[in-house]
Amino acid sequence: MKIQGRNSVIEALKSDAITVNSLACEKGSDNGIVALARQKGVKITFVDKAVLDKMCSGGKHQGYVADVADFKYCELEDILSSSPTPFVVILDGLSDPHNFGSIIRACECAGADGIVISKNRQVAVNDTVLRVSAGAAAHVKIARVTNINNAIKQLQQSGVWVYALDMDGAEITSTNLTGPVALVIGSEGDGIAPYTKKCCDGVVSLKLKGKINSLNASVACGIALYEVVRQRG
Amino acid sequence: MKIQGRNSVIEALKSDAITVNSLACEKGSDNGIVALARQKGVKITFVDKAVLDKMCSGGKHQGYVADVADFKYCELEDILSSSPTPFVVILDGLSDPHNFGSIIRACECAGADGIVISKNRQVAVNDTVLRVSAGAAAHVKIARVTNINNAIKQLQQSGVWVYALDMDGAEITSTNLTGPVALVIGSEGDGIAPYTKKCCDGVVSLKLKGKINSLNASVACGIALYEVVRQRG
Repeated sequence: MKIQGRNSVIEALKSDAITVNSLACEKGSDNGIVALARQKGVKITFVDKAVLDKMCSGGKHQGYVADVADFKYCELEDILSSSPTPFVVILDGLSDPHNFGSIIRACECAGADGIVISKNRQVAVNDTVLRVSAGAAAHVKIARVTNINNAIKQLQQSGVWVYALDMDGAEITSTNLTGPVALVIGSEGDGIAPYTKKCCDGVVSLKLKGKINSLNASVACGIALYEVVRQRG
Repeated sequence: MKIQGRNSVIEALKSDAITVNSLACEKGSDNGIVALARQKGVKITFVDKAVLDKMCSGGKHQGYVADVADFKYCELEDILSSSPTPFVVILDGLSDPHNFGSIIRACECAGADGIVISKNRQVAVNDTVLRVSAGAAAHVKIARVTNINNAIKQLQQSGVWVYALDMDGAEITSTNLTGPVALVIGSEGDGIAPYTKKCCDGVVSLKLKGKINSLNASVACGIALYEVVRQRG
């Protein structure tokens, strides 16, 4: 996979979840990024801007394109053990890498302990997700599980309250989310699978005051995350 | 401009801000959408799926592609007069049509009275914005002004408190947003212009708990909008 742009490359070099195989810099670069890459033992090449342009098919590289190994997912246990009151996001089959990248950014900002995704029916952490996450993917634990419903049960057995974010639930602002909590976000097209929803401890909803009442998945997730942040104070 | 997809076409047909010039339907369509278009005096053609595919360069049209006139912007006064306690979003130079479309969706859901954008340095309501807004653009008032700073002054003269959403302000959850309020959202790259920020009555911030702390503009806007919704109860 490729990571491009100054900040994303810096975060990747600092991250445990992302292994940088090699770094292509624009000729003449000699700065903190190059030094950091050297320190990490990353193979560095200096190339013309046109070469970088080609490497990332015209995207904004700001003089840096890194080749990275596949994203290192963690185990669900790693997320659970990272906080006494875990704060987890579960994605049920998101297909849009832009939404996934935005959700990773929002989780990083909200201080969530990790994200759980499924191996099937869900976009993996790919180049686009890394780019959109703007470096945040290097700092958020992401577990990739075979079965979302089993992961929900495992979370519940560990004392985490699992809530589906959907249309027909209790208002999120009047639901106590100060304890160990996981929020399930449905896919863009189909929402949360019926059986997955049944596995949850409850359903929480955002107040909808319009006629269309359709929020983008990453926006809805961001709003719900920040309600948890607000309640935890 | 083109609008595609069942729901987006229905909302466009119902909307005052969008004038549908003509509608291309997949051959054999004879349903509520066709009836609604007939009722509105829209010219209807029935074509093969391949023709529709070509019209929207492979996007999801679900059998319906409408040709629409340019989006009808409203005046700032229209937004101000639509509520005794106006709830307004001001966009300072957003460049990404996906962000703009998502913000329109979020405004519709949060019951905001309208959006103010600038004629310059700001993506207009185009095909992509309409598509991403998922029909919401038909129900949200959008005013396009020559000068954002003058619009802020006009809002203030009408008793609206204008807050910049930025990093260095008071926490949004402890700022009273129950009165007439406008939120200024900065551009993806540069945030809010310094002079525009100076024109505001205050700066409100989201609590940031990570290392990267960079939220997508539409996610940040959605979170702020729903804090207003929560406070207004």
